[in-house]
Amino acid sequence: VPGVPPTRFVYLGPPGTFAEQALRTLPAASNAIREPVADVPEAFAVVRAGDADAALVPLENSVEGAVGVTLDLLAGSDEPLMITREVLLPVQFGLYGRRDLTDRPVTIASHPYGLGQCRVWLAANHADAMQVATSSTAEAALCAAVAGEQHRLTLLAKDVGDRADAVTRFVLLTRPATPHPRTGNDTTSLVVFISHDRTGALLEVLTEFAVRGINLTRIESRPTKERIGRYCFFLDCTGHLSDARVGEALMGLRRICQEVRFLGSYPRTDHDPPVEPPERLSEADFADAAAWLQQLRTGG
Amino acid sequence: VPGVPPTRFVYLGPPGTFAEQALRTLPAASNAIREPVADVPEAFAVVRAGDADAALVPLENSVEGAVGVTLDLLAGSDEPLMITREVLLPVQFGLYGRRDLTDRPVTIASHPYGLGQCRVWLAANHADAMQVATSSTAEAALCAAVAGEQHRLTLLAKDVGDRADAVTRFVLLTRPATPHPRTGNDTTSLVVFISHDRTGALLEVLTEFAVRGINLTRIESRPTKERIGRYCFFLDCTGHLSDARVGEALMGLRRICQEVRFLGSYPRTDHDPPVEPPERLSEADFADAAAWLQQLRTGG
Amino acid sequence: VPGVPPTRFVYLGPPGTFAEQALRTLPAASNAIREPVADVPEAFAVVRAGDADAALVPLENSVEGAVGVTLDLLAGSDEPLMITREVLLPVQFGLYGRRDLTDRPVTIASHPYGLGQCRVWLAANHADAMQVATSSTAEAALCAAVAGEQHRLTLLAKDVGDRADAVTRFVLLTRPATPHPRTGNDTTSLVVFISHDRTGALLEVLTEFAVRGINLTRIESRPTKERIGRYCFFLDCTGHLSDARVGEALMGLRRICQEVRFLGSYPRTDHDPPVEPPERLSEADFADAAAWLQQLRTGG
Amino acid sequence: VPGVPPTRFVYLGPPGTFAEQALRTLPAASNAIREPVADVPEAFAVVRAGDADAALVPLENSVEGAVGVTLDLLAGSDEPLMITREVLLPVQFGLYGRRDLTDRPVTIASHPYGLGQCRVWLAANHADAMQVATSSTAEAALCAAVAGEQHRLTLLAKDVGDRADAVTRFVLLTRPATPHPRTGNDTTSLVVFISHDRTGALLEVLTEFAVRGINLTRIESRPTKERIGRYCFFLDCTGHLSDARVGEALMGLRRICQEVRFLGSYPRTDHDPPVEPPERLSEADFADAAAWLQQLRTGG
Repeated sequence: VPGVPPTRFVYLGPPGTFAEQALRTLPAASNAIREPVADVPEAFAVVRAGDADAALVPLENSVEGAVGVTLDLLAGSDEPLMITREVLLPVQFGLYGRRDLTDRPVTIASHPYGLGQCRVWLAANHADAMQVATSSTAEAALCAAVAGEQHRLTLLAKDVGDRADAVTRFVLLTRPATPHPRTGNDTTSLVVFISHDRTGALLEVLTEFAVRGINLTRIESRPTKERIGRYCFFLDCTGHLSDARVGEALMGLRRICQEVRFLGSYPRTDHDPPVEPPERLSEADFADAAAWLQQLRTGG
Repeated sequence: VPGVPPTRFVYLGPPGTFAEQALRTLPAASNAIREPVADVPEAFAVVRAGDADAALVPLENSVEGAVGVTLDLLAGSDEPLMITREVLLPVQFGLYGRRDLTDRPVTIASHPYGLGQCRVWLAANHADAMQVATSSTAEAALCAAVAGEQHRLTLLAKDVGDRADAVTRFVLLTRPATPHPRTGNDTTSLVVFISHDRTGALLEVLTEFAVRGINLTRIESRPTKERIGRYCFFLDCTGHLSDARVGEALMGLRRICQEVRFLGSYPRTDHDPPVEPPERLSEADFADAAAWLQQLRTGG
Repeated sequence: VPGVPPTRFVYLGPPGTFAEQALRTLPAASNAIREPVADVPEAFAVVRAGDADAALVPLENSVEGAVGVTLDLLAGSDEPLMITREVLLPVQFGLYGRRDLTDRPVTIASHPYGLGQCRVWLAANHADAMQVATSSTAEAALCAAVAGEQHRLTLLAKDVGDRADAVTRFVLLTRPATPHPRTGNDTTSLVVFISHDRTGALLEVLTEFAVRGINLTRIESRPTKERIGRYCFFLDCTGHLSDARVGEALMGLRRICQEVRFLGSYPRTDHDPPVEPPERLSEADFADAAAWLQQLRTGG
Repeated sequence: VPGVPPTRFVYLGPPGTFAEQALRTLPAASNAIREPVADVPEAFAVVRAGDADAALVPLENSVEGAVGVTLDLLAGSDEPLMITREVLLPVQFGLYGRRDLTDRPVTIASHPYGLGQCRVWLAANHADAMQVATSSTAEAALCAAVAGEQHRLTLLAKDVGDRADAVTRFVLLTRPATPHPRTGNDTTSLVVFISHDRTGALLEVLTEFAVRGINLTRIESRPTKERIGRYCFFLDCTGHLSDARVGEALMGLRRICQEVRFLGSYPRTDHDPPVEPPERLSEADFADAAAWLQQLRTGG
């Protein structure tokens, strides 16, 4: 479109990683500028600085669990960013080598997450190889197929991940804005900080969801870096910020928690059917109750 | 005031009963028309018909418990009435006799509630007397001092109630209207009907109050007259319909109960200090949470 | 049986009342001595004194609710008695008159509970009659058919109760003993006293039942006679004292309540099917958990 | 002791790591055989095989969070091991180089956890260095002081960790046995698997602790590797397996969870004062309740 600057996305590089693959699945990114960044902190920084409109970073992996650095930056005290989309990407590793490699590789480059997901295979097949964190000097690499192709490498072994069904969940981050409109099948993400001198605080947090029939799909505790034993909790629930019951639960959390940070409401992509609210807790039930209260208050 | 019809109050008669005493304590009743009615159903009926503006009836007694007929009429399917005031009246009985009574009384008139509250004394002192329900033909009566004086009776024995500190709670009923304005030390009364095929329903009801830090001061189960084992619950909580946390709890009850009937919000008269909301659950905390949610929803 | 003294039952008299009818339904009472007592306190007293083996008294009525004097004596500080059976009796009133009554009765004898249950009919048909508490001098009586026949009275009007389906629940009381053996369809009755300076205490009580999947069939609050706003709670739950889950819940109540009084475990008589424990909360599940814990503690 | 084979401990090697430091703090290990193993799976394997009596492995770090491989092996389907001790070790990194290093290091060896904890310092000071996973060929290493000294390396920079107060929690694992005796200040560790088709299951789990006044000191969700959105929970609570309230809570969890694995009860080492049970929930209260129930059941 003439005169309209194109959208600029960054992703956790280098090119050819799963993050680039995941970004390509987003329609909005297909005609946009897509650039790699060196690490997750840089991804947050360029969006905060306005040098990019959005960043795609990994949030969790079905094998390794949460990506600590992403969680810490989402929960940290710098300018908050918001999750506007998620991408679930099956991740499958291959071992790729330089074209001129004639012997078994002595060094294998491997992102720590790749290492974690191919631990068994590596121990069984290349226990003697040195594992290095950067690929530039390595003779072989554990990586995604696209990366192997992109770098014109030779496939030495395919499907070397310890679990064939590994999935990584990426999230697209922007500066705070009005959330994606409600689709009827949405996830809302939060991080709550609990004052641990209040007994049963987590029980109270879960009760705020339970009394309103809201389903929690993910609960991830995370040390707050103050000391062992002090946690914040990353929570995903079904529903959208604009839902009456989600809004009411958020207000409840705001009151009982030290801090609640709304991380975003966005469409679910796990292909599970929408979770219907339980009987008596639909949007219509909330609207009916609000109208009834209004009538009582005005003496009707 | 010329042209303005005076307010008309009825009370559970006959004149001289504790209900008349209780009504006299209300400033609004001091210059109004005050008339007795024969029983509680009549009190409800004349207010419903518009023949009186308000009715004062007993709700519960510290010795005998709830007044069943009042509860049933409050919970019944006829046009609902609303509680707009409460009066707590110490009740102390005397035995009064006709001026010409020269011997021990053979018949003692006694409202069933009076009988209940003087049971021990009667058994010890007048086990042989016939207890009758209407005073017109009786030779002596268990009644309040004012009634004795009003009928120019002779005091035969004073303080004959089994408990010296008995208190009856009366409520003033009107047709539904805007509740008495919030005073900061109010009671809200409800009756809730629970569908008993939902396990744990009462637990859910109490949780709606507990998560919002609302104090329940009275819980009275009552058979719904369908069959033994089916109950509705009369609940009194501290706070006013206009309080954010009371309003939110009511909306919650509306959603989970078969029926919720708001019986009224009115000033407390028990001379206990106001119950402050717990930390983090004040009106200001509710307002802050609502403002925060609004800001999130508009992308602020 | 020679040498064995017969069992002696007392019931709330006089003869011909519903209590006698109810007692006759108990097989154990058919060949036993059955004697009326004047009132509920006397029924408690004679059992406590050992002058009777058991007493049948009314506990609640589907129309009038709980029988306050029975509840107070069950919860009182005198020697506790135990509920060993319940009887549910449909109660239907007739108006019976003296054989020589030729005109409309001027006085109608009526137990206060009878009065409560025939209120509408009396108001419509005999508003002018004097209602008296003892039948000896009355010209007519509201009573059960057996009472009318027993006293050779003439039926003036039948089925005069305001509700045709009224039921009274009687309980058989004995001195404390090993409860009736478990039948698989039992009720356990308790009274708990709650320290009201502990917020949410009733919620805690209900939670003790809920976490173990125990169904509460009756919850009856009752002022403790200290002052308005202080209650004890009469609770009936499904299950037997010997059930693991009932026992564990009772121990939980014992810890959190000011006082818990076990009133009895006895067979249900309401003809409802037995309530099965929810999935994972059967006796076998409790036994499995106990065996597992024992194994852990011994390092197995 | 002649004839008694010495205890054999293994720890996560190589020698000089924080795990060796941590093991040296255990009195029982001071005169025992201490041998490094290559990785956490090997540590589990040698104990399971009986080739070592115990293994010391890292469980969590105050900066990086849980050590995924340890959690997965604790929760996995192979023969379970038991936690018998914990060691909290402050971890501080230095950068150490070969004695002959004359220039800035081109390769820096760094365990992934060391990398995670020195991320900021590395980016600021050695962004150009290649980070490798094995130290044998590296010119410099991020490691503990003892490791630097052990390998006779030169200190290039001290206190390079991003957080000066980082602490790692190690646990000592043995084959299942009777737990360490109760000290009065103990931790009990569990892993529970929740059937996610049961709504509110985590709320039920937390309630089992809350109703018994048991304090949870750690809650760590972990994907079960089946798929994203399915979790098990690692729970630490205060108290010992032999405590009545802990035992009862465990039985409750056993009933409501798909699986509960007891990981161990062992002395706390965080120097916090013992957590006293709340009022009414002491061992004496549990014993009193059990005695009371026993008395009821035998008709006492």
